[in-house]
Order: sequence, then C-alpha cells, then structure tokens
Amino acid sequence: MAASPLAGVKALGFDVFGTVVDWRSSIIREGEALGRAKGLDVSWEAFTDAWRALYQPGLDKVRTGAMPWTRLDDLHRMSLDRLLVDFEIRGLSDSEIDHLNRVWHRLDPWPDSVPGLTRLRKKYVLATLSNGNVALMVNMAKRAGLPWDAILGAEPARHYKPQPEAYLRTADFLGLRPEECMLVAAHNSDLAAAARVGFHTAFVRRPTEYGPTQTRDLRAEQAWDVVAESMVDLAAKLGC
Amino acid sequence: MAASPLAGVKALGFDVFGTVVDWRSSIIREGEALGRAKGLDVSWEAFTDAWRALYQPGLDKVRTGAMPWTRLDDLHRMSLDRLLVDFEIRGLSDSEIDHLNRVWHRLDPWPDSVPGLTRLRKKYVLATLSNGNVALMVNMAKRAGLPWDAILGAEPARHYKPQPEAYLRTADFLGLRPEECMLVAAHNSDLAAAARVGFHTAFVRRPTEYGPTQTRDLRAEQAWDVVAESMVDLAAKLGC
Repeated sequence: MAASPLAGVKALGFDVFGTVVDWRSSIIREGEALGRAKGLDVSWEAFTDAWRALYQPGLDKVRTGAMPWTRLDDLHRMSLDRLLVDFEIRGLSDSEIDHLNRVWHRLDPWPDSVPGLTRLRKKYVLATLSNGNVALMVNMAKRAGLPWDAILGAEPARHYKPQPEAYLRTADFLGLRPEECMLVAAHNSDLAAAARVGFHTAFVRRPTEYGPTQTRDLRAEQAWDVVAESMVDLAAKLGC
Repeated sequence: MAASPLAGVKALGFDVFGTVVDWRSSIIREGEALGRAKGLDVSWEAFTDAWRALYQPGLDKVRTGAMPWTRLDDLHRMSLDRLLVDFEIRGLSDSEIDHLNRVWHRLDPWPDSVPGLTRLRKKYVLATLSNGNVALMVNMAKRAGLPWDAILGAEPARHYKPQPEAYLRTADFLGLRPEECMLVAAHNSDLAAAARVGFHTAFVRRPTEYGPTQTRDLRAEQAWDVVAESMVDLAAKLGC
C-alpha cells in the first residue's frame, strides 16, 4: 500500500486572522468597551467590518509596488486614521489611538485553537504564515497562549499572501520543500495560492468569521487534502 | 528614586551557541558515537574545535560580501566537507554526512537554560538573536524544549552578528526600540556590538564553552547591565 501523500508533511503554516483567532468579535468587544468609557456613539460592528474591508486594498498597494514594504501594523494605522474621521470618533489621545490600533495584537483565539495546536505541535513544526507582522503575531501569541514554533509569513518573506514568495520563503526558512509543508486556512483563496506552489492544504471551516450572515468560505471549494471543522478536528484527522 | 534603566526592557535576544547550548560537548559526544559505529579513528575534540574554528572565517566571507547571503547550515557543510578530508573520515554516505552536518540542530542546552528561560518568559519576550539559521534554531528548540517566543537573528535580518543590522532588525521585527531590548550572551564581543547600537546587555558566564582549558570570555570585560552565572541566576537578577 502506498504511503499517504501527507506522510512527508513536517510543518504546518497557519493563516491566523479568522483561522486561529476571531478578529471580528474581539475588535467589536474592545470597541464597545472603549465606546462606553469615552461616551462614543459608534456601531462597532460596522466599524470593525469597515476596518477589515480596507485590509486587502492596503495590502494591494504593497503587492503592486505602489507603496514600499509596509508592515501590517502601519497599514492598519493608515486605515484607522481614516475610519476615525468617517465614524466621527473624536477625543482620543495619540496613545489611545495607538492602543486601539494594536487591538489586532489582542485578538482572542477560537475556543478550539489552543487545544488543537497543542496536539498538532507534538507531531509538526507549527509556524505562522500570516500577513500580520512579527510583533503583532508575537504579542498575540504571548497573550493568547498560542504555541508556535516559529513566527514567519509575510514580514520575514517581505511579500504578502497570496504572492508565491510568502509561502515559498516560509518553507525555505524552515529548510523544507513546499511539499513538506501544509497551509492551514479558513480561506479557499489562500489555500489555492499555497497549492499552486506545491504546499499541502487543510481547510478549517470558520462559518462565523465575518459574522452571523457570512456568505464566503462556508465550505471547501476545492479538493483540499484535509477539511476540518475545528483545530481539534484537524489534529484528529492528522493523527495527532 | 529614579526607575531602573532596565525597567523599559521588554524583550531579551539570546545568543545561542555557547550561551544557551553546549555545542562542544554535544558534538564531541555525537562524533564519538559515530566513530564507534563506523570504526573511525578520529579525535572528536580536535574535530569539533576545528569545525568551530572555521565558523568566523565562513561568516566573514558573507559579512564582507565575498560570498552572497549563505545560511549557517550551508557554511557548516562547506567546513565539514573540508574537515572530512583533513581528518581522513571516509565511508560516510551523503545522507550520513548531511545528518552529521545537522548535529548543530541537536545541541543540548546547559542544564540551567530551560529552567531559566521558562522563568524569564513570564516577564519578557524571548527571541533567538543567533547567527544560526531559522531551521537550525527551530529544530534545536523543538528537541531541547527551549521556550522561544520568536526565532529571529541573522537569517531574517540577512546580516551576521556583530554587524549592527543583526541587532537593529531584530528589535525592529519585534516592534521595539533598541533600548527596549537586551542581548544575553556569553561573549563580550557580541555584547559590545549590541551595546553600540543601544541594546541593554547581560553577560552569562560559560567558562567551559570551549572546553576545560578555555581562556576567553571567562569574565565580564565591560560594565554590562547584568552579569550572571547561569540562566537561572539571570532570571533571579531580573526579578523573574
């Protein structure tokens, strides 16, 4: 009997926003607390969705070369400065704005993430393969207890996903060939880009990442190597 | 009373070879086992010291631009290929030579390293700030249980210590200013280079790193911020 094609996988690279952490609920919750403290009348659902809507256009400026390399913290801040005007949020000091911008460092994991990663880590090297910058990922991991072996992805690779270099340079940092790596993500487009450069793929379904009316990424749209309902389910399906 | 100048330190960057792990004993031990298995008549002390003696000259070729960026695994292999001739080590297969080259991934920590790092990690971000490449550091940490928050240093910075970029880019990846970082090292020259770019400094004494007749780095040669006898002593001196 032939060995499983997954038998050669040595490292798992993780998309983080949405796949490992619940960015939307975390930011809404912190925004609501800020609103109460500062007497702000803001829809934090709308604010959070608007912030995330500026994410891909910001990355695109870097991907196309319209902007030089810019880390995600700084792209988030450029978007936030605009949203403070659009949502008429006034009266925040510079340090309060900086603190709000770093809410992305304080996102809570989905409840299954830490237990699932802890199991997966016994068998695989676990690395972030996120567009988030290193400081963001380190601070998030420290607060949330995410047991990464390495913080890699866009910033060390100097390319934002889904550019091929983001995946290939992550594999190269780990001293591995692409087929020895698997991307774990809740987003079909991310998995498609990883598969194109030779990575294995695991889809983890996160049907409320974008809130209760989510329409995208509700299911695996291609024949990914593994399809899981949670990080714990992924651990079980990978024999951990 | 003024706050301690160390109160602002948020991250510790660690030299690894010699400071955290005992490369010399580890390589001698594995070499002796290989020698017995293969019937080789080699002084593994001399072999290990010769391998390490080729380390700085190899790094210098990259530092000076005589060679393009080359990761330490590949520099180690170039040195090893030469030593196999010099020490008349014959009869190893390609995969056996590759495995021997990766002995640097399998170095044992000093006995105090894991307990000390575990205490330090509660208060500080702990990052490697080594000339070792990412894969080497990740594999070493996984095997030895070294609790790093991030694998940084020469390869992500694309500069070998003591070049200033190695320290400055590590701080930058962490989103910190140099004065928010402290280098922990058993080598006075490494600490001097870090101090020149604004890092705080901690010397950990490792008087047998180079064997029982070591003459270098037996004591702190400048007024480093902290001087410690072990990683556990460092944790105590930093209030962890």
